[in-house]
Amino acid sequence: MLDASQVEGFRTHGYLMLPSVFTAAEAGVLRAAADAVYALDRQEVVREKDGRTARTAFAAHTYNEAFRWLGRHPRLIRPVEELLGGPVYMHQYKVNAKAAFDGDVWQWHQDYGTWARDDEMPEPRAMNIAVFIDAVTEFNGPLWLIPGSHVEGVYEAGHDVSTTSYPLWTLDQETVARLAERGGIYSAKGPAGSVLLFHGNLVHGSPPNMSPWGRTIVYLSLCHVDNHIRRFKRPDWIAHRDFAPIECLGDDCLAELAEVRAA
Amino acid sequence: MLDASQVEGFRTHGYLMLPSVFTAAEAGVLRAAADAVYALDRQEVVREKDGRTARTAFAAHTYNEAFRWLGRHPRLIRPVEELLGGPVYMHQYKVNAKAAFDGDVWQWHQDYGTWARDDEMPEPRAMNIAVFIDAVTEFNGPLWLIPGSHVEGVYEAGHDVSTTSYPLWTLDQETVARLAERGGIYSAKGPAGSVLLFHGNLVHGSPPNMSPWGRTIVYLSLCHVDNHIRRFKRPDWIAHRDFAPIECLGDDCLAELAEVRAA
Repeated sequence: MLDASQVEGFRTHGYLMLPSVFTAAEAGVLRAAADAVYALDRQEVVREKDGRTARTAFAAHTYNEAFRWLGRHPRLIRPVEELLGGPVYMHQYKVNAKAAFDGDVWQWHQDYGTWARDDEMPEPRAMNIAVFIDAVTEFNGPLWLIPGSHVEGVYEAGHDVSTTSYPLWTLDQETVARLAERGGIYSAKGPAGSVLLFHGNLVHGSPPNMSPWGRTIVYLSLCHVDNHIRRFKRPDWIAHRDFAPIECLGDDCLAELAEVRAA
Repeated sequence: MLDASQVEGFRTHGYLMLPSVFTAAEAGVLRAAADAVYALDRQEVVREKDGRTARTAFAAHTYNEAFRWLGRHPRLIRPVEELLGGPVYMHQYKVNAKAAFDGDVWQWHQDYGTWARDDEMPEPRAMNIAVFIDAVTEFNGPLWLIPGSHVEGVYEAGHDVSTTSYPLWTLDQETVARLAERGGIYSAKGPAGSVLLFHGNLVHGSPPNMSPWGRTIVYLSLCHVDNHIRRFKRPDWIAHRDFAPIECLGDDCLAELAEVRAA
């Protein structure tokens, strides 16, 4: 569970970085799972503009064992239940590659803006918790967050359907410049196994990866069960429709999987 | 002049970072000059793919006073004369913008590869010395160098005419990955007025700028006068043909210009 200063930090800045929450062995299980998922020919695996490089794999917890277990891991679910004040369901689950050389940008945006516009999620009682499957450095496409940008609600956005292979509601440059002048930019870096929590309204983006080192981050978008979406416009593998509270597995579930695989 | 450990560091790693060589007032003169140059409608000012945003201004020392003086500044010319062992001429001069939001990538490449292929420069007795006109951070498109990548000569390269608005001889991914595994990547960051020297064969590139903060770096490509180019395929505002040794101005030339402008 989070301590009082962590909760206070989250409320103020809109994010919380927790280094090395998972061990190298646990991250290794997820690393292998990510490669397996990227190799699948499924509609959930979205490719970059080149039509070849994996960009993101949606709903990987529904077709991969390690990611299924990660989606019920107490080290991820408990802190979010604490911050959102009750049981949560999985609104979205994605495994984001940022492939070496070819991983493309994620433009500046707010996740809850999309959840409200596309899915009619009533309130921003939802947030992301992310797990670094690889070490994330300044070179391989870290997540960039604008501290304090979560407090003014949802900003206007335009639907950018051309910059990358994945359409996104993105903020205008004036808004981003104003917020970054005030709050700066925080680059979320850390060893494999690190965890980042951030508010559904926090403005964030991620630069392209021109380094020779790929990196994968798994994002669980968790929503309070009372705050479930009302509109089912997007496919159910993007915006899930199972609003049942997530029941956590044991704390050692991934460690056990690592041991089984090693044996 | 450089001391022995600096010279040794340059020989080993292929670059040398010198923070705050110019004062804030001197950098301010150059900052104003860059804006003036970007606003010019000249063939030397290359735009990004959007046809609007300045990407680089070639030969700015031939049509802007502050950049003319910078091109003869002893703090830039003397160290390069020392490293190249004699008088130098200006092979290329460019003012590289990396505009906020819109500044595009410079792919992985070696400068001497281009100078040899396009201009028939006999040997890599030429190098860059760069001046940061703005603070360069991890967010606004720093230069990335691969330490030690200058020692094996010129690598094979392909002519990339599609990624950006400016065609470039770029290295293949296997070569970059191999060199970065060995040497890592150094991101050249520092306050406005900092200076970076790097070997003509050092592999380098620069990521796009998705931050709200622009940054300009001026590159002087200096060549030993005996090593001048033999082929005149590229326009003379890209590959200069005046092989006369550069004669330095006084150390206070830019400071005086700053005072005159302030008065």
